[in-house]
Parts: sequence; structure tokens; C-alpha cells
Amino acid sequence: MKDEIRMAHGSGGSVMSKLISGLFMTHFDNPWLNENSDSAVFGIDGSELAMTTDSFVVDPLFFPGGDIGKLAVCGTLNDLAVAGAKPLYMSAAFILEEGLPLNILEQVVISMARQLKLSGVYVVTGDTKVVNRGKCDKLFINTTGIGKIEERFRHVHTARNVKAGDRLIINGTIGDHGIAVLLAREKFSFRSSVQSDCADLYPMISGVLQLFPGIAFMRDATRGGLATLLHELSMKTGFGIIIDEADLPLKPEVRGITEMLGLDPLYIANEGKAVMAVPYEFADNVLRALKKYPEGKDAAIIGKISPDFRDVILETNSGGRRILDHLSGDLLPRIC
Amino acid sequence: MKDEIRMAHGSGGSVMSKLISGLFMTHFDNPWLNENSDSAVFGIDGSELAMTTDSFVVDPLFFPGGDIGKLAVCGTLNDLAVAGAKPLYMSAAFILEEGLPLNILEQVVISMARQLKLSGVYVVTGDTKVVNRGKCDKLFINTTGIGKIEERFRHVHTARNVKAGDRLIINGTIGDHGIAVLLAREKFSFRSSVQSDCADLYPMISGVLQLFPGIAFMRDATRGGLATLLHELSMKTGFGIIIDEADLPLKPEVRGITEMLGLDPLYIANEGKAVMAVPYEFADNVLRALKKYPEGKDAAIIGKISPDFRDVILETNSGGRRILDHLSGDLLPRIC
Repeated sequence: MKDEIRMAHGSGGSVMSKLISGLFMTHFDNPWLNENSDSAVFGIDGSELAMTTDSFVVDPLFFPGGDIGKLAVCGTLNDLAVAGAKPLYMSAAFILEEGLPLNILEQVVISMARQLKLSGVYVVTGDTKVVNRGKCDKLFINTTGIGKIEERFRHVHTARNVKAGDRLIINGTIGDHGIAVLLAREKFSFRSSVQSDCADLYPMISGVLQLFPGIAFMRDATRGGLATLLHELSMKTGFGIIIDEADLPLKPEVRGITEMLGLDPLYIANEGKAVMAVPYEFADNVLRALKKYPEGKDAAIIGKISPDFRDVILETNSGGRRILDHLSGDLLPRIC
Repeated sequence: MKDEIRMAHGSGGSVMSKLISGLFMTHFDNPWLNENSDSAVFGIDGSELAMTTDSFVVDPLFFPGGDIGKLAVCGTLNDLAVAGAKPLYMSAAFILEEGLPLNILEQVVISMARQLKLSGVYVVTGDTKVVNRGKCDKLFINTTGIGKIEERFRHVHTARNVKAGDRLIINGTIGDHGIAVLLAREKFSFRSSVQSDCADLYPMISGVLQLFPGIAFMRDATRGGLATLLHELSMKTGFGIIIDEADLPLKPEVRGITEMLGLDPLYIANEGKAVMAVPYEFADNVLRALKKYPEGKDAAIIGKISPDFRDVILETNSGGRRILDHLSGDLLPRIC
């Protein structure tokens, strides 16, 4: 194989991890980047700040439940929220293709503005570049966000407080976003009502974190899906993880479509799902607190941290055990 | 004309200004964005921070004097520096085209790392997206930077201290970057030694600002060139500007090439040039201080702020006067 960029380099899986550790982390080497979290956390004058960046290249631009603009805002808010940060300010940089209808751009900007207003966050600086027709695909957006972390939440973006026996909680159904985008992009012969779960998780996450500052770890399960997140958590902590298939929240329609298409929902992207590692003693209380929020109504305890091995194990409905491998290809490109 | 994105929407000129004010500033409306500076300035816990974002889509990726990686780092450093900020942390987000040779990406990353090390700044968080072949052009980079502003430099990114009689100083020759990129991209029959002026201006700018905190205004002259910067300054202040053609630093080779190609160097991009508005009383001292730095050796006083009219006027070598209009088309697309 030639040494060139493949779609898998953007999948969130093992090929991407190798690119990031072998290239970016090797050359940019510094303690903040090496933390390998979705947000960097640093202090300026005694304030702890979180910073996160994402470019959005989703195809199509509009899909049931969202669009590239809402996605760009929520994606950045969520990366800050799971770092224990309160999102404050955001940049927005647009790469536009010559010939893009202005009303498409306007719809995207209005969608961003609506979400920003709902979330109480501001786009304070921006950039606009235009490339010739055929040199990008309609429009790409980069959003970079800055938030502020309370000292007592400083640990949640690292995994250092995670210990054997901690329960793993997710705030709802998996795979909705990836399937919604896939169905909007491809021409299938069936109809579906699957909507992206794209949402700002900050209100829920900060509400629950205020009540339970002892939550050990949080991360949102985006590219690469829940399985990829669990893999990273296992790698970071050195602990194994056991997940029970029967406990995984999954919409019947998403289950049906993934079975029909031969996809595994555990590897499908979400845009409104976070996983928390919570000490056993108050896992049920965190679950109850999550369920009070619309984004947490289908929350569930899906598994636990295990000291016994270093894999991610799925206990299947049929009573077997399956190792959830690190994603190596790219199931669904350009879903964010 | 159809309402669609044209190359001119990315030019830095009047078409881009209309897009920014009519669309982005209308919908994202907030005091930080409305300041319309290259960096947003906001306070967190009493610290004044500056934040700036830029996507880089330069074609070709490598050109005499620089490459997209060095450009991305320096561009962000300079936007922070001219806001009176000390650059601290940066994000780097890559959009990669399937099929991009990995060694090209590696060269770019190494170039970024080299500049970051020289500048003492860290890429603390990043993102990697891959799009299918033909859906972007090799690679695009977004860099977003955070810096800290000393209270006494809080005014330089606004133009509020600018007054009639202030002298305008530039730190060297104009048009070098745009011409270097143009020559690297197009196949011309002549050879040239023109190099991009791409450079980190922070050491020079902070050095001079420490000595002369009374400098009224600074901005770097990138897309749209010196003329576009002067236009924006005139619009912001309500003052006219008079520039003397004889005083404009211009490399003979750049002069020759722009004459031959019918381009106006006043509208050609720079990537290592800042303009300062300085009270008359110490303009000569600032000039002398600038000249001590390699990036300032060709610095010159090029004109002044005038109370008499609201245009940007060029006093030509032939003794005439010419109004420098706001750039309306796009002379040289994708130069940054």
C-alpha cells in the first residue's frame, strides 16, 4: 500500500490514532497535546481554560435533526462540556466553494446563530476563504471553542480518577447521527424517521456534574462511535471494560437499519451522546439525574470498568462474549 | 448575476466585507465580533485574552520563503501580535484529501513544528478530517490562537486612539508574499528570486510596543494588501489617509513583475507586514526601533492620517493623486 491518506485516516479508529500519535503528537509534542483529550486544558493567570477545535465536512449539509451549522456549534460545545468546562466563546471559519448558493450558506449561518443563542455562547471571531469550483465540497466549517473549568471538575477530561468497578453510563441511544446522515446521503428504497441526535449537552452535563462532582470521567462518543470511545478509555486507564448488549440503548429503527446494512451501531457516530465513568456507589443517582433532561431520557448504565483484562468486551444477547476491536477502516465517511 | 459565492468573496475586498457584515455579523451579532478586528478581545476572570482564527487554503502548498504550515502558524501569531497580545496556545485542524502523500503532510507538520518551536507557542489541540478524492485540494489547515493582552496595549487592535496627523509606518516591502505564491503556482517563462515575507512578527511588534505603548493602532496587511488595510482603517476612524508612492518599500523585482503582469502591489498580499499608526512626535523613534529587527530593516513612514477627507489617497511618483478604491474583484485567489 502506498503511503498516502486514506478515508480511514479520518475515521476516529486505529488508523487515525496512528497518524495522530506518529505524526502530530510526535512533532508538536507538548504536555497539553499529549493529554490526548478532545479539549486541551491550560491555565492563564490562575484560570483553568479548555480549548477545542473541530472542522466539519459532513455530507450532506442538511440531514434530519440537524445541519452542518448546528453540528459545528454543538460539537464544540460538547467537547468543552465533557471537559468539565463552561463554553464561553467560539470562532467560526468557513471554507466556501465558488458557486455555492448564498441561500445555502445563509441557512447554515442562521442555524448556527439559533443554536448559539439557545446555548448562550458567542462566535467572536471568524474567517472566510473561497476556493475554486471543485476544490472543496460546498462548504466546510471550523469551530474552535474556549471554556472555563472549575477546579473541582479539572479531572473529568482525564481518566485518572477512573477505577475498577466504576459504572459506565450513556445518556441515550447510539448510532442515531451516523444513520440519519447515511440515509440523507444515499438513495435507499425505504423511508425512515431516524433523526440525528445532534444537541448541546452542556446544560445536562453541567447540571449533573454540579450534583455529582465525583463523576470520574466524561467524553462524548462521536466519530468511531461508542466502541471507539471505550477503546480509548481502556487504553488510557489500563483497565478492561465490560459492556452488556442488552443494556445498550438503541432505537428499534436504528437496530433494523444497521442489521439490514451490516453495520455495527457500536461503531456509528453520535453527536449528542456522552459516556460517564461513575463510582458504583452513586451510579444510580447519576442515572436518575440524567433522565430528568430531554437529552438524558434514555440514559442507561451500560457496563463497568474491570480490573481483569485490558480489552473491551461485549456480553452479547445470545450469552456470548465478543471483543470490540479498535475500528480499522472507515464505516461511514464524512458524518461530521 | 446569480446569488452565489464567487472568488471575490474570499479576496479581502469589498465583496467579502459585504458578506461578512450582511451575513455573519448580522446573524452572529455580538460586541466582540462587531469590533471587526482580526482578533476578538474578551476578558475571563480579569485577564484580557485575544482569540483569532484562520483557515489556510494556499495553492501551492510550498512556495519560496514558506509553505502552508509556516503560513498557518505565522498568520495566527501575527493576528494576535497586532492585537497587542502575547501568543500562548494554538489549535490546528487539518482537512486532508484522500490520496495525499503522507510525506507531503509530514513536511507541512515539520514546518509548523519548527516555527512553533522558534516562536515558543504550542499546538495544544487538533482535529483531522479526511474527504474523498476531489472533495478538497490536497490539504487545508485551520489554526486558532489564544494570546494574552497587557492592559496598556488594549487599544491597539481598535482604532480608537488614531488621530489626524498620526504617521503610518510599515515594517518593510509590500507584495512579496502574493508574488512569490503566484510565481510558484503559474508557469511563467522568467525566473525570479522573490520570496514570501511569511514571518512571525511577534518579537518585533512586542519589542517596539514595550518601548512605545502609545502606538495608536496596528494591523497586519495580508489578503487585499496594504490598500485594503488602509481602507478599513479609514472606514473605522472616519479619517482620510494620504500615502506617498515614493515612500512605499517595494523590491525592484516585485515592482518589475507587477508592472509586467498589470498588478498593483498595493493590493497584493503580505504575510509578514504590519502597519502602525503612530503619533507624529515619536514616529521617527518607532521607525528606528523597527529597523533594529530583521523583519523591520526596510521599515518606512509611508503616509499619515488626514482630517480633510475620508478616502485613501496615493500621491504618485508623477505628482498626481489617485484614490485607492476598495478592492472589488479577486486579483490573486488562494494566496493564504
